[in-house]
Amino acid sequence: MEKDQDKKNTISRRTLLGGLVAGAVTYSQTSIAKVVPFSLEDDPTKVVGPGPSKVGKRSPFEKPERKPSDISSRSPLQDIIGMITPSDLHFERHHGGVPTIDPEKYELLIHGMVNRPMRFTLNDLKRFPSVSRICFLECAGNFRSGKEELLAQEVAGLTSQSEWTGVMLSTLFREVGVNPKATWFLAEGGDAAVLTRSVPVSKGWDDAMIVYAQNGEAIRPEQGYPARLLLPGWEGNTNVKWLRRIEISDQPWMTREETSKYTYPVKDRIRQFSFDMDARSIITYPSYPNKIEPGWIEIRGIAWSGRGKVQTVEVSTDAGKTWQIARLQGPILDKAHTAFRHLWQWKGGDTEILSRVTDTTGYTQPTLKQLVNARGADIGGYHMNPVTAWQVKRDGRVLFKPESYK
Amino acid sequence: MEKDQDKKNTISRRTLLGGLVAGAVTYSQTSIAKVVPFSLEDDPTKVVGPGPSKVGKRSPFEKPERKPSDISSRSPLQDIIGMITPSDLHFERHHGGVPTIDPEKYELLIHGMVNRPMRFTLNDLKRFPSVSRICFLECAGNFRSGKEELLAQEVAGLTSQSEWTGVMLSTLFREVGVNPKATWFLAEGGDAAVLTRSVPVSKGWDDAMIVYAQNGEAIRPEQGYPARLLLPGWEGNTNVKWLRRIEISDQPWMTREETSKYTYPVKDRIRQFSFDMDARSIITYPSYPNKIEPGWIEIRGIAWSGRGKVQTVEVSTDAGKTWQIARLQGPILDKAHTAFRHLWQWKGGDTEILSRVTDTTGYTQPTLKQLVNARGADIGGYHMNPVTAWQVKRDGRVLFKPESYK
Repeated sequence: MEKDQDKKNTISRRTLLGGLVAGAVTYSQTSIAKVVPFSLEDDPTKVVGPGPSKVGKRSPFEKPERKPSDISSRSPLQDIIGMITPSDLHFERHHGGVPTIDPEKYELLIHGMVNRPMRFTLNDLKRFPSVSRICFLECAGNFRSGKEELLAQEVAGLTSQSEWTGVMLSTLFREVGVNPKATWFLAEGGDAAVLTRSVPVSKGWDDAMIVYAQNGEAIRPEQGYPARLLLPGWEGNTNVKWLRRIEISDQPWMTREETSKYTYPVKDRIRQFSFDMDARSIITYPSYPNKIEPGWIEIRGIAWSGRGKVQTVEVSTDAGKTWQIARLQGPILDKAHTAFRHLWQWKGGDTEILSRVTDTTGYTQPTLKQLVNARGADIGGYHMNPVTAWQVKRDGRVLFKPESYK
Repeated sequence: MEKDQDKKNTISRRTLLGGLVAGAVTYSQTSIAKVVPFSLEDDPTKVVGPGPSKVGKRSPFEKPERKPSDISSRSPLQDIIGMITPSDLHFERHHGGVPTIDPEKYELLIHGMVNRPMRFTLNDLKRFPSVSRICFLECAGNFRSGKEELLAQEVAGLTSQSEWTGVMLSTLFREVGVNPKATWFLAEGGDAAVLTRSVPVSKGWDDAMIVYAQNGEAIRPEQGYPARLLLPGWEGNTNVKWLRRIEISDQPWMTREETSKYTYPVKDRIRQFSFDMDARSIITYPSYPNKIEPGWIEIRGIAWSGRGKVQTVEVSTDAGKTWQIARLQGPILDKAHTAFRHLWQWKGGDTEILSRVTDTTGYTQPTLKQLVNARGADIGGYHMNPVTAWQVKRDGRVLFKPESYK
């Protein structure tokens, strides 16, 4: 409606001015064939643009997109500038599609080893003291390799970052009176998969939250609308979306998802309940399919750790022979994507560029070889955080460097 | 396409399960008339939802909107939770509509008192060392009063906050070699208003930026796509959008907008070049048209200052007789909206709730009376940052408290 109005205004003004210009030109030219119409539309200062609107839209020249598969979609890391992932580009991973939940009908049940089992409506949750936190969420299976033509989005796009707001789970634990002998709780989603995960009660007392807002507004449907569990730094699937039930107990449940998935061989043992996401970094510029030119280039990327803050990021521009400390963009937050930048003068030869992060626990991101040595050849696809290298070809092409590990 | 696929899956699964349920009911019931079909669609765990998508959408239950007028639109402060304003809800103020600018054709000219006048394409700007900063932007005319039925959005919605990324203007000043005798620069927009403002060169050397990204992606068209001037803490109109030209000089220009607008009487003098936005706060919950119930209520709001960080926010729940220190949400950033929260037990009587901020310069947000005393009755509508009071009626209604000042 508003747009049509604007179009009409624009057209009438254009017609008017167009007529004047045409008249002037005809007057001063002898041969009408030489008249080249001046398109006022080419000069944005000569066209009144659309007026204010209720909800904005991206520029028609910008079309950032996730890459969806059947079960997930990946954030376009190579297009994301800064620490916040736009909510509509936050990665997705779901096990039964995105449910449509009426917030008026939403309830969260907390029961089990508690003094007062309770149901909380969304409005109940919003009445409790609230907290905001900027942190990343990363899928346990955030890894891809195998060919040179891979975007940063394909290699590591199952991580995103938002400002989350909600209530501390510890506040609700006090409300229901969690039994001091409780050690685990079950988190159950209200989607078609009824996804369930067992979580240590200690995480609930520490920094777990029930969040209902993301980047300044209600959580998006793919992120758990109207409320989800947030376990800062822990693998994505434990941050149960569309959360409808928490049951307190003194043992883990061994649910379908935590036994059929998210449990995997590591050398001679089985790794289960691998909650913390290890520190990782990736260069997002330049990356495939950028083509660079010799001269000064600002290498840019993100680094994060599920165990604390980013302490340092090192960048190598000579295939790992030497490393320099990158600049970090503040504020450097706990369990949060942190942007790093490093100025590099590329003189035009073949090389590889890499980044590696060290977090505040002293842990340094390993190479793929180090990971395989530590975990064995049947390493699988979970909790893969190897150093990512990009090949820079002498003609300026940038390609992913796939490394085989099986 | 993907959606259709999901619909098909959903229908076939529903048909199958529906058949089974109907069969079971028929078997155990004698009168078919008593069969009440159970709608599986009412239970989101029984319906496979849509799969992953390229770009997400809000829940159909959430419809936050700006309030547009002919020249501006206001952010829905009462709906915004946290420090980030969703980019499509960032307030707007433009003088000639929103231009459509092709980023491939965009250029920024810097000339005047410089050693090397230069044109920068958007890609040129992106090659320079980049910086990100979370800060607010507020229109100089961010004020409204006059009736009780006003939303926080209407009272103070011409302020919003984003994470901005771009290049420091000081970097470009060094690139072109700004003459040490220069004192002012002109910033000119590429919109139909060709908005121009004079800015002290010192701000350019301090914290001014040319930004091309907002909240993780390209700047939105209403915010200056593809690049705008960012002057942290300074009145919105000086943060020239669609920036196409910077001219360096040794005097201000006295341009149309800075003389016809943004210059105003203050007692016996005329106030001109009033750049810094004074510290301000507003309670956003509860606010009109909320209706509250007796019991514990978390009073929530935002506070900010154009001159530094928020030092303290005080909240009064007894119409200004007594004040308590509110909790501030970290990270507390320079020249940034900072969320404050205060737990209040409302017992059901008539009262007024208010907030006031003190910033790190020691300045405290004034009452409207203090503002009028300082500036005179012809105070106008610019740089109005009075303490905002909400009336709480004994029936739970919350209304704005308009105060007359003329």
